[in-house]
Order: sequence, then structure tokens, then C-alpha cells
Amino acid sequence: MSSTGKLAFSSDYMKGAHPDIIKRLVETNMTATGGYGQDEYSEAAKQKIRKACGCPGACVEFLVGGTQTNATVIDAFLRSWQGVVAAGTGHISVHEAGAIEASGHKVLTLPQKLGKLSAEDVRSYVQAFYADENHEHMVMPGMVYLSHPTEYGTLYTREELAAFRRVCDEFHMALYVDGARLAYALASPESRLTLEDLARYCDAFYIGGTKCGALFGEAVVVPDPAALPAFFTIIKQHGALLAKGRLLGLQFDVLFTDGLYERIGRPAIEAAQKITAALNEKGRPMLFETPTNQIFCIVENDRLAALGEKVEYGYWEKYDEGHTVIRLATDWGTTTEETEALIKAL
Amino acid sequence: MSSTGKLAFSSDYMKGAHPDIIKRLVETNMTATGGYGQDEYSEAAKQKIRKACGCPGACVEFLVGGTQTNATVIDAFLRSWQGVVAAGTGHISVHEAGAIEASGHKVLTLPQKLGKLSAEDVRSYVQAFYADENHEHMVMPGMVYLSHPTEYGTLYTREELAAFRRVCDEFHMALYVDGARLAYALASPESRLTLEDLARYCDAFYIGGTKCGALFGEAVVVPDPAALPAFFTIIKQHGALLAKGRLLGLQFDVLFTDGLYERIGRPAIEAAQKITAALNEKGRPMLFETPTNQIFCIVENDRLAALGEKVEYGYWEKYDEGHTVIRLATDWGTTTEETEALIKAL
Amino acid sequence: MSSTGKLAFSSDYMKGAHPDIIKRLVETNMTATGGYGQDEYSEAAKQKIRKACGCPGACVEFLVGGTQTNATVIDAFLRSWQGVVAAGTGHISVHEAGAIEASGHKVLTLPQKLGKLSAEDVRSYVQAFYADENHEHMVMPGMVYLSHPTEYGTLYTREELAAFRRVCDEFHMALYVDGARLAYALASPESRLTLEDLARYCDAFYIGGTKCGALFGEAVVVPDPAALPAFFTIIKQHGALLAKGRLLGLQFDVLFTDGLYERIGRPAIEAAQKITAALNEKGRPMLFETPTNQIFCIVENDRLAALGEKVEYGYWEKYDEGHTVIRLATDWGTTTEETEALIKAL
Amino acid sequence: MSSTGKLAFSSDYMKGAHPDIIKRLVETNMTATGGYGQDEYSEAAKQKIRKACGCPGACVEFLVGGTQTNATVIDAFLRSWQGVVAAGTGHISVHEAGAIEASGHKVLTLPQKLGKLSAEDVRSYVQAFYADENHEHMVMPGMVYLSHPTEYGTLYTREELAAFRRVCDEFHMALYVDGARLAYALASPESRLTLEDLARYCDAFYIGGTKCGALFGEAVVVPDPAALPAFFTIIKQHGALLAKGRLLGLQFDVLFTDGLYERIGRPAIEAAQKITAALNEKGRPMLFETPTNQIFCIVENDRLAALGEKVEYGYWEKYDEGHTVIRLATDWGTTTEETEALIKAL
Repeated sequence: MSSTGKLAFSSDYMKGAHPDIIKRLVETNMTATGGYGQDEYSEAAKQKIRKACGCPGACVEFLVGGTQTNATVIDAFLRSWQGVVAAGTGHISVHEAGAIEASGHKVLTLPQKLGKLSAEDVRSYVQAFYADENHEHMVMPGMVYLSHPTEYGTLYTREELAAFRRVCDEFHMALYVDGARLAYALASPESRLTLEDLARYCDAFYIGGTKCGALFGEAVVVPDPAALPAFFTIIKQHGALLAKGRLLGLQFDVLFTDGLYERIGRPAIEAAQKITAALNEKGRPMLFETPTNQIFCIVENDRLAALGEKVEYGYWEKYDEGHTVIRLATDWGTTTEETEALIKAL
Repeated sequence: MSSTGKLAFSSDYMKGAHPDIIKRLVETNMTATGGYGQDEYSEAAKQKIRKACGCPGACVEFLVGGTQTNATVIDAFLRSWQGVVAAGTGHISVHEAGAIEASGHKVLTLPQKLGKLSAEDVRSYVQAFYADENHEHMVMPGMVYLSHPTEYGTLYTREELAAFRRVCDEFHMALYVDGARLAYALASPESRLTLEDLARYCDAFYIGGTKCGALFGEAVVVPDPAALPAFFTIIKQHGALLAKGRLLGLQFDVLFTDGLYERIGRPAIEAAQKITAALNEKGRPMLFETPTNQIFCIVENDRLAALGEKVEYGYWEKYDEGHTVIRLATDWGTTTEETEALIKAL
Repeated sequence: MSSTGKLAFSSDYMKGAHPDIIKRLVETNMTATGGYGQDEYSEAAKQKIRKACGCPGACVEFLVGGTQTNATVIDAFLRSWQGVVAAGTGHISVHEAGAIEASGHKVLTLPQKLGKLSAEDVRSYVQAFYADENHEHMVMPGMVYLSHPTEYGTLYTREELAAFRRVCDEFHMALYVDGARLAYALASPESRLTLEDLARYCDAFYIGGTKCGALFGEAVVVPDPAALPAFFTIIKQHGALLAKGRLLGLQFDVLFTDGLYERIGRPAIEAAQKITAALNEKGRPMLFETPTNQIFCIVENDRLAALGEKVEYGYWEKYDEGHTVIRLATDWGTTTEETEALIKAL
Repeated sequence: MSSTGKLAFSSDYMKGAHPDIIKRLVETNMTATGGYGQDEYSEAAKQKIRKACGCPGACVEFLVGGTQTNATVIDAFLRSWQGVVAAGTGHISVHEAGAIEASGHKVLTLPQKLGKLSAEDVRSYVQAFYADENHEHMVMPGMVYLSHPTEYGTLYTREELAAFRRVCDEFHMALYVDGARLAYALASPESRLTLEDLARYCDAFYIGGTKCGALFGEAVVVPDPAALPAFFTIIKQHGALLAKGRLLGLQFDVLFTDGLYERIGRPAIEAAQKITAALNEKGRPMLFETPTNQIFCIVENDRLAALGEKVEYGYWEKYDEGHTVIRLATDWGTTTEETEALIKAL
């Protein structure tokens, strides 16, 4: 429930953290530890993440937020003359206020379908780049950026990820996955892509905490640490090094204890499925159905005001003169009561 | 007490947060609010800070950490051809991994005394700059950066701050104060510089949370908001915008309720005074005495190992062949028992 | 004639400079002058350009090349959080190796027709930007970049330029025109846009020298110098300040003596018209016809090798399986003999 | 002689170019060639430079000016988290308007003697850096920048350069020499450092053209091209790629034909020696004597105005209340008549 008294479905970063995290925070509060991630909680969390990803030698670093993580990782991998290939709808392409360009790198945008890039489109683009006799006057594609789930709540398959890997190998590009909402992918019955798969195919990916049950925090996993020789300093330079790194460590330690992270998204998925089913039953149109925690409803404009009285939702886009697309997001803390109240309100 | 079982005096960001903050965090955890600082806690905290600073029209924004805050504020004020004047020992000059240069700005370093710049030195430097017929080939000084307390725990007086203001006005420079440890200045009996003074003389300053009782967070105060037209976007571009901005808001709301911030540093100051008195009594030399929460002891090298068995301290610098300067930092949570145990160990 | 013995039509920067420029260079060679543009030739050239543009108070600065000029002027106008709106085919969007992003600014690309943006498309884009409730998380459009002639050799009309001015005024954006090939626009019988028009409607534009009869050099005109308070230092910081600025000054002094610049493109236009007429007569297809010095021919792939024996041309793009688009560029020095030989070869 | 009618001794970039260069420019003017350095003159010049440097596999690229060259080469070698070590008086430290910082790199300044760094000072600095337990929070020294001759006209010996090489090898730093005035070093009887030595010890250096008889241009030599995989694109991104690269190629082709570059500085050295001898004879004090083309005279303030009537000189610095240090620079084109007239005037 929102502080406004309405049903809170506008996004998935509206509440605090999973109760287990809060409990741990309270317990450890007055213990002094080393700073900047040199503490036992961080070390334990890193070990658990390495294990969950099946890569015992991985470099794992905790950063605070998503834009910061994207800007830092992308800058860490790219040389000054390289850019990053992304969907035109990618978070880095649109909603990061130019953070990638601020560290000097062009975002090379390609068309997408429901938020997804295709490996074939990337291949065509990069082949055309190298075939262009002027390509030394152009920005070299040095990385492919995917989000999983995408900004539209859609998912990549293992085969698709493997195909991106092949393209990246062929053209010496890094493959990076933004997992801001990764828990909702892992909890989706349609997902076949595991943490181990991400570690196998990616040069780097991040396991989202902020939108997935933590107060804040994203865990960057770099399976081959030799790829990023000065990552700690790069993080510091980007203003992304938390003094009390323990706060990040303890949150991810909790999230990776007893497999919490892999099940924390389930309430969100179940709620989303119920809401989708109810919309279908009521004959309420959706822009498309997603396998994760975001629902894109097409609503008559004259119903919006009444809906807004009871429900916090996100404006997505204009559909036509008489209709608007709104986005409803469930999260790890969405309750059955909230879901039912929402269904009634829709 | 540290997680290692030793006495924790290595810095002032080793523990969690003031219990009142933790209490508030627990209470509000499952309430949904707006993101990115658009929440009631943040709004309340901003109002309290404006009131404490005596500037009802100020822009107040909450960022996560110190390096991030410095890089963001300095980049926000400077134009691309300008640099920032700072002490050679300033945090931005040495320990921010080139974050200021990463956004394109030179740090123009001047000599210091116990961490302090003098307004006269700044004036001489800037006068010489404009007198140099080649100054259009050089980096224009666009801002003066001070830390208060300084990295050496020393304090500026109101008169000194006013003198910097005059130099800045004369040469069209912004004046910015890094208050990472501001609570320890405010709690020092030697301090005469209030929050209202900072608001009167500075173009921007930040009220440190991370080292002063918060889990994390720094509150930037810009008395004249017209000076920074797109500050929110700049914060976002620097990866410094916390999705759950409420976490920052509620911490500063607690810190600025009933004047907590102005007294939260007292235990640290009292402990530091006791330790200093004990060192003097025992005839243990110090590099110099400071009015705040840092103590710089000169220790015989052959005593360091034994001390390190019981106490976590910070290495500061080599003193001579047989001696080392170590830094002890007290904090808002330092207890009488810890202080007495430390005195015994020294 | 090219050093390879072929007909040189691959671009318009293949030869040295107009003979009058070379003559002046020889005459002045051993005279010592002030550096960095503080010389009599530069001063004289600036005065002539101000007069030709009808803006006696303009700031005029000479830079060396086009990419450098674009990067410097765009960085000078934009604040760190702003980007520049450009056609997807704009030189800054594709062929400057990320120079704009290297100084931290996003190029916001819009669709084009034959290389031209439309003021209406810009208006729609910017309106949608400000209507988006998340626009503070996005890159603010701070400038519109046009090239005249465009990369496709097309021209804007006075009415079109005025329409861009209105959009820019409405949304507080600067209007900048890249005139790398401006002489070929001014010499085109279809052009109605004068230097005075450019000065009236633009915040900045540059008068191309490199492709228009100079050895090198571009003259930036900023009608209202107050818009760029530290332009000299910005030029220096971009590595764009020529020590022997006199070389730029004397070239533009020659180009703006007796109206040379406004007629220097005529041989190129006349040659292009003859070639176009001949192609039409022979029934050779073109991608489209342009009013300036670039000709885009559709050639059967099996004729390319033979053509390449006699003519240097530019590859433009694949047309279909059996055809290729090639670009032929005439220039200020193209002779009647060369034109006739080319027509024979086509 | 200056265009003002005075004797021109204010710097060494006041005249045009060596007559052989002008001759070549005139001869080749109407020949069309490839752009961006893809021309026969550039190729010939590169071969001659490789031969003169004794490194047949070197990458040689021509840029336009010194600040541009420094910014481009330093950015090409450094990773985003690295800085460049330089004398506090180095050109990059003071007179490049923050160009190094604008591409994100800190200039790490060390004390100098008459403009020279010492390898021992660099070693101490870098050792202390790695010994500091906080060095991951600091800017890593990734390159050493020397100028030869220095800004004070002094020279490094072969042994000194070899010592820098050893420090650089030990700490994985690149060694880069700014040879803006290199011809005056090569022509100095005191110099023992050859082009081959530079190629042996440096990771990169540039052979100055602008101050050494060219109209403009600097030739960057990178003995091991594998060190800079995308140097062409980096040059383009820095706006440092000249469209008519042939102009650079032909100038360096002339300068490296029949050893011209190695003797072009002689008239300057001979003139400087005569002037120095005359000053000594007249009892006119100098700040110190240099082995190259710059003379630093200490002049009574009340003689300056009269001197300024006849001679263009450079202001260097205030010496004491009654005296000023002025700089006189001779160049490749200084005549015996000018030298004698200057001696008379002094």
C-alpha cells in the first residue's frame, strides 16, 4: 500500500526491502567493519554469488544503482574509441540522462521487437560497419548491451543469448546483460535462462537488487576478472564505491542465502499472472502479454481518472486518440489482497 | 567493537547508523512511496534542512556518497573550460581516483597548512592567473573547494569563510564546502561556524551523512537554486540518483529532527578530547592537536604490531626512520568503554 | 588530375588551394606575425566576413577542419546535460568517430529526407520530450545541427531555416549550421539562402574552407559573441587553436576579397550540371538529382571496374544485387577538360 | 622581420615555412591525391622518418599542432583510470587549457629543475604511490611526459632518457617525449640524443614541425605500432585528422629529405650563441644559459619600454621589484642581420 493510501503498482522500487534484509541490517548495525567492501558480509555474499553462478573465479562487485552500474561497467570495458550496441528502447539509450555519453561512449542503437535485440541484426550491423571503407572514421562497436528482462518485460532464451555470444566472439565485442529486474526473469515459468547461463555467455552482467527486494544495490559479475584489471578504481572514479560497502554485502548475502533471490520474484509473477488472467476475462485489452512482472494495459482515456483515484500506475504511451497504454508493475512484496483489490479496480 | 574483536578506531564510517534512523527504516519499510526523491520523507527532510540553514528557498538534494557528491556538484557548477581550486591535500585532489578530471575538470592545487587553504593564497593565485597574458591558454579557476573539517580535522573560522566569499565574488568563482564530517565540526567546542553561516557564504555545501550517523547519504544545499538549472538531470547523469530516494530522505529527516545532527557528533568529540588528554598525560607525541574527531599520533615503529593486536587504526604517513604517524578516528557511536580501552592500549 | 593519372572525382578535398591563396602564402611567408590568430591577416579576414554576413559585431574564429569545428562549437554551446539534434545521416552522427560523445554530448538523431531534417519533426520530437514526465532522466535537446548543403548535396530554403529558428526559440535551443560545402550552396542557382540569412537565423555556423578552395580551415561565425564567453579557451582545449593562425587568416582574407567565396563554387556547379545533363541524355539513372556539386549515379556492377580504370569515384551504397550507387564530386578546380573526359567515361 | 617593423624574437612560430616547403607546396598544388594521409607524399615522408629513426616498423602519423598531439597521444596510451606524470612546468600541465583533463586524465605534476624531471623523482613518486594502501582510490600513473628541449630550453642526456625508460619498464608506464622544438635540440652542439635514441627509449614521441620550419604539423612516431591499435580513429575522434593530409606529408617529406630536419635548427642555435656571448660580454645577466634557441634575460624594468620599441620579445616572469625576465627565441629563419640588430638593441 502506498503512503498515499492507493494501491501501489506504478513500479517495482516503491517499497523498502525484504524483511530478512531488514532483520540482518538491524542485527549488524553497531558492529564495525572494514569499508569499501572489505568486510565479511561482502566476502560471504561474493562467495555465494560465485557459487550460484557456477564460476568460482568470478570478480563480483557491488554498486548502488542501475544507471551507475551501466555507466561504470560499460566505461570499464570500452576503449575510448568504442561504443555500445543497444536496443533503441534500452535503458542506456533513453533513460540514463546521457550517462554513457558523459564518459565518452556513443550508444549505437538498433531496432528492437518488444524490447529485444536480435543477434542477427547485430551481426548485420557489425558486418556492415567493417565492410564500410570509412569505418575508421566511425565509432567501433565494442560491446553489446541487453536487458533481461527487457524494458518491456520480455525475456531472451538461452539460444538467443548463445547467438549473441557467437556474434560477440566473431567481432571481438563484450557481451553485457543489465539484470535490473533479473529476479522476475528467474521466477518466471517461461524463463530457461539461469544465472549459470548468464555467467557462461556474458563478459559481465549485473544481478539487480534495487527492484528485486533490496533497499538498493546491484551485483556485477565478471566471470573472467582478467578482463577488467582496475575495476575497483574505475568504480571509485565513477563515484560508485559505497563507503559502507557492508550494506551491499549483507543485502546480497541475505538474497543469496538458501536461494532467496531465485524465488523472491515469485509473488510478483503470480500476481502478474492473476492480473493478466483477470484482464483477459474482463475483455480488457493489453498491448501484449509479458512473462514477467509488468503488464501493459490499453485503457480508455475517460476511465483513467477514476482508476487513478484508487491505483498508482505508470503512464507508458499514447495508444490512439481515445486510449492510453498504462504500465502496472508487481513486485516481490505484492500481496494477494493488493492484487485482488487491483483486479476489482481495473 | 569491530567484527574482528578489536577496538574500531580506523575511521568514522565503520558502523551502521544511529538507532533512530534504523528504527525509522524498519517502521517505513513496507510503505510504498514515489521514487527518485519524490516522497514525503524527502520533502520533510528538505524542509527541515532549509530551516536549519536559514534559507527557505534553497535547493536541497540527497546523494549517496562523498566522491559522487563532489564530482556531481563540481561538474554542475563549472563550465567545460574551468577548474576547481583546492588544497593539495583535498579529498578531490588525491583520493577520488580522478573523478573530477573524469568529468573534464582540472583540480588546481595550492599549498595548505594543516589541510587549510588561505583566502589570500587563493587571491594571489587567481590574480596571477588573470595577470598572465597567456591565461586564455590556461584553465580558468571557476570554483574554490574547501573541506570543513579538513582532511586533517582542522576547522575554518567564520572570518576565514567570509574572506573566501570575498575572493570568490571578486573573481566570479563559486565557493563549495565539502562537509563529509560536518557533524564533528558542529559539535566541536572550537567551532564558530554554523549551518546558517555555510548557507550565507557558500554557493553550495554538503552536509555529510555517511560519516556522521547515517547508513549513507550526503545532503547538498544550494542556497540559490537558480545557480543550477538542471541539477536533477546532472545528478542522474552522474549515476548519483537513488531510485529509493526515500532512504536518503528518511535518514536526513531523522538527523534534522530535534537538532540531532548538531549534537550527533558530541560523543566523538568527547572521546577525542579524552584520548588527546590521555596521550598528553602519558607523554605520547601527536603530529598536532585537532578540534574534531581525528587524532594523529606519532608511534614508535616497534610498538605498532602490539597496538595492532588490539586496535584498528589508520596508517597516515611515515614520520621518521623510527616512527610512524597513525590516525585514530572516533565517531558518533564511540562508547566510553571503547575510549577507555583505547587509552589503556595506547 | 589525380596523382594516379585518373580523373579525380572522388571528393572535393583532393587538391591544394585556389591559386590566389597560394600566391598570398608565398608572398607573406617570411614575414613574422603574432601567433594564435593575433595577426593582421586574421583581423582583415574577420572584418570581411563580418561585412559579408551583415553582422559587424560577430565573433569570427578560424579552425582547421570540420570534425574539429563541429566538436568545438557544439561543446561550446551545450551544457553537460544537453545533446544535439541531428539527422541520422548528419556528419556528426556517423563520420566523426564519436567526437561529439567524446566531449560528453549525445547526438539525438531524427529521420531525414535526402539528408534534410524538417523543423516540424524537430518540434514534434522536442514537444514529446518535454511532455514526457520522465524527461529529467533524459538528455535535453540543447541545439539543432543542420548541414547546408547536406551530406546528400541538398539545400535548405530560407523559409525552412526560419522555421528551425522558430522551433529553437520556442524551446531554447541553439541553431548551428555546418557549412563544410557552403561555397557550393552559394554558387547553386537553386539557392536562396545567403550568408546574411545564415547570420540572421543561426546562433553559429561555419563557412567551409577545406572543401571550398582553401588548403584547410573553417571560419566559425557567432553573430552574438556574448553567447560564447570563453570561446578562445574552448578552442585551445579542443586542440583546435593553430599556432600560426595567420595561415587561416590569410586564406579567408583571400576568399573574402572581391567576393571570391561566393563565386568560387561556380566551376563545380557548372561541371555537375553538365555531368547530370549528360547522364540524363545517356539514360544513366541517378539516385536523385542535387542542386550542388555531388552526383549520385546508379551503376551496373559489371561496369564499375572499367570505370575505376579511368575515374576516381566514391562508393556510396549498394543499390540492389546488380547495381551500386557511386558518388562523383566536382570542385572549385574542376576543369572543362576533366568534365568532358568524365562524361565520356561514364 | 615582423609585420610591425620590429625585430621578431618573441617566439619560434612567427614566420611561415622553410622555402623548400613552400616550393613543394606550389608545385603540387593542383595535383589531386587521396585524403586523410592516404597519399604518396605522406607515405614517402613516413618512410624517411622511419629510416631516420632507425625503426622500419614504426607507426608514423602526422597531426596539426602540439596541444592536439599531446592530448591525442596521451589519451591513446592511457586507460580511463590512469594519469600522466609531468613536470609542473610542462606544457601539458599549464598551457593547454586543460586539454588532457578534458579527455579525462589527471596530470600528476612533479617538481622540476630548469624544466627537467628526474627519473629518480619519478621512481620515488611511483614507488610511494604503490606503497600507499589507498592507491586504488588514487589516479594510477600510466605515462611519463617529457619535453625535449624542455619549456626552459634545456636538454635531457641519453643516460637520463635511459633512466626514465627503466623506471617506466619497472612500473608499466609509457614514456612519451614532446618534441615541439626537437630540431633545436638536434642542432645543439651539446645534444647527444639522436632520433634513433628517442625511438629506442620512448613508447612515442613527436617530431615538431610547427616551431621547426613547417607551416604546421607534428609527426608522431610510435616505434611499436601494436601499442596503439586504433590510433587513426583516436586521431579522428580528437578532431586531429587533416582532410588534406598530403599537406603534412609533403612538409615532412621535405624536412626529411637530405637530412634537412637535423640541420634546420642550426641558424637558430648559432644566433642564440651569438646573442648569449654578446650578453655575457655586455654584462647583461641571464636567468641561466640554455643550449638551444631560447634566451632568458634579466632586464631592468625601466629598459623594457625602449627595448619593446625595437624588439618583439616574450614576457617570462617577474624577477624582482626592479627586474623582469624576458624570453628571446631564435628560429630556423633568423638572419645574421636580425641577430646583429638585436645585439645592438639589447
